[in-house]
Amino acid sequence: MQTQDIITSAQNPKIKALLQLQQKSSFRRQQQLFVVEGRRELMHCLSKGYKADTIFLCPEMLKAEKEYESLLSALPMCNTLSVSARVYERIAYRGGTEGVVATIRMKNHGLQTLPNDTLSPLYVVLESVEKPGNLGAILRSADAAGVDAVIVCDPLTDLYNPNLIRASLGGFFSVPTVVCSSQECISYFKQKGIRILTAQLQDSSLYYDTDMTKPTAIIMGTEATGLTPQWRKAADAHIRIPMLGILDSLNVSVSAAILMFEAVRQRQSL
Amino acid sequence: MQTQDIITSAQNPKIKALLQLQQKSSFRRQQQLFVVEGRRELMHCLSKGYKADTIFLCPEMLKAEKEYESLLSALPMCNTLSVSARVYERIAYRGGTEGVVATIRMKNHGLQTLPNDTLSPLYVVLESVEKPGNLGAILRSADAAGVDAVIVCDPLTDLYNPNLIRASLGGFFSVPTVVCSSQECISYFKQKGIRILTAQLQDSSLYYDTDMTKPTAIIMGTEATGLTPQWRKAADAHIRIPMLGILDSLNVSVSAAILMFEAVRQRQSL
Repeated sequence: MQTQDIITSAQNPKIKALLQLQQKSSFRRQQQLFVVEGRRELMHCLSKGYKADTIFLCPEMLKAEKEYESLLSALPMCNTLSVSARVYERIAYRGGTEGVVATIRMKNHGLQTLPNDTLSPLYVVLESVEKPGNLGAILRSADAAGVDAVIVCDPLTDLYNPNLIRASLGGFFSVPTVVCSSQECISYFKQKGIRILTAQLQDSSLYYDTDMTKPTAIIMGTEATGLTPQWRKAADAHIRIPMLGILDSLNVSVSAAILMFEAVRQRQSL
Repeated sequence: MQTQDIITSAQNPKIKALLQLQQKSSFRRQQQLFVVEGRRELMHCLSKGYKADTIFLCPEMLKAEKEYESLLSALPMCNTLSVSARVYERIAYRGGTEGVVATIRMKNHGLQTLPNDTLSPLYVVLESVEKPGNLGAILRSADAAGVDAVIVCDPLTDLYNPNLIRASLGGFFSVPTVVCSSQECISYFKQKGIRILTAQLQDSSLYYDTDMTKPTAIIMGTEATGLTPQWRKAADAHIRIPMLGILDSLNVSVSAAILMFEAVRQRQSL
């Protein structure tokens, strides 16, 4: 890396563009870039084949000169900019504890990128998921459960929302994520013989009485309105988590985790 | 209810005391009061034997005169105050969509209040839980799983934190909650013959290979540091959720839900 000036003003055009990428879904789409914060997330991201565009480092935040040097040497060729602690505070969400923020090139998330190389794939499908935090939490659990892919149908949030990426703690990078319409997804599953299990309270069996060892997709709707009829009709089985208390629903990311790990249990008990 | 004036200033001493109750754990403890927001939560709370001290209603927020009247008639004897929409906005967290905030008398949460009337109780124990949102989320899942009680040992958050109550969506009221020291709790379990299953990655069996049908307590530590040695030593079995991806932990509320519902599965499959 060449010695360079440190950016000390948040009015610098590159800092302004970075802030826009964090805040505006439309700007992210137009630039085909998104933002990753923190050393560990960035490493996960780069190790999964994402390409960095620009890396913003705050030398004062990196604990030691050595850490700064080792981070730089680990990074692939890309623009590296240094920023002052004051500017870093503006661009970092987590209070500047890590000293690294980067802009990353988006990938293609079309249905054609869905991995189908395992004998008995396990997919999780989220229809019209709204809250980026929930989707991020589901990606974190999906990583742990070894899910082959998370498919987001007709989403109401953008996949590169910073809250989503943060909540996934790296799961966003390790779990393949596909975005498509519900109709495309249903056609694909039917064609490939993947069993569609819809999570719904009505007309359903207990999830642990349902076989999840075959190629399986677990389909979840929103907490508020559930799944649309197209999914209910396409289902091979309707499954429910028993609700034994006074409340009428679980958090969607909790439900997703319970269902994914039931598939893990059944598959590992074979 | 008698006709009364509407409070229009946030400087009103009763409003100022309410704000302090929301913000300060020490003031809650001193007053032995906490705050509940929203109609549904309030109904859950009162139906579980909590006593309201003062109810703040915003007539403008309640959709119709009829709704206002029916709410008032459903409330037990307590002070009722009306506030203007502007004041309500100050005291409500959720943007004033429901028009009801109340101060409620605390209950006793000592170990002697632990329900032990079921043949094979299922308890969830959280050691040194820090984040109120996580504890609230666990209470929501514990309600759904029909857990007999959630026990909080050596907590670092106060049980009546508004974020906790909100995140539980009413689970805080429906699931008995006990606060005690880890030592007290371990002694109690040993004396009552309740099996202690500690969630930990080292020296552990897969959770679904562990019997949870007998009287069982599932013990969870913090995401950062795990459980202290006193619990590990007291354990009848160490259990782990398999981590099949690149991340090294699940969210604590997600882990708790997976373990609780495995107990549900095993017990309902008997």
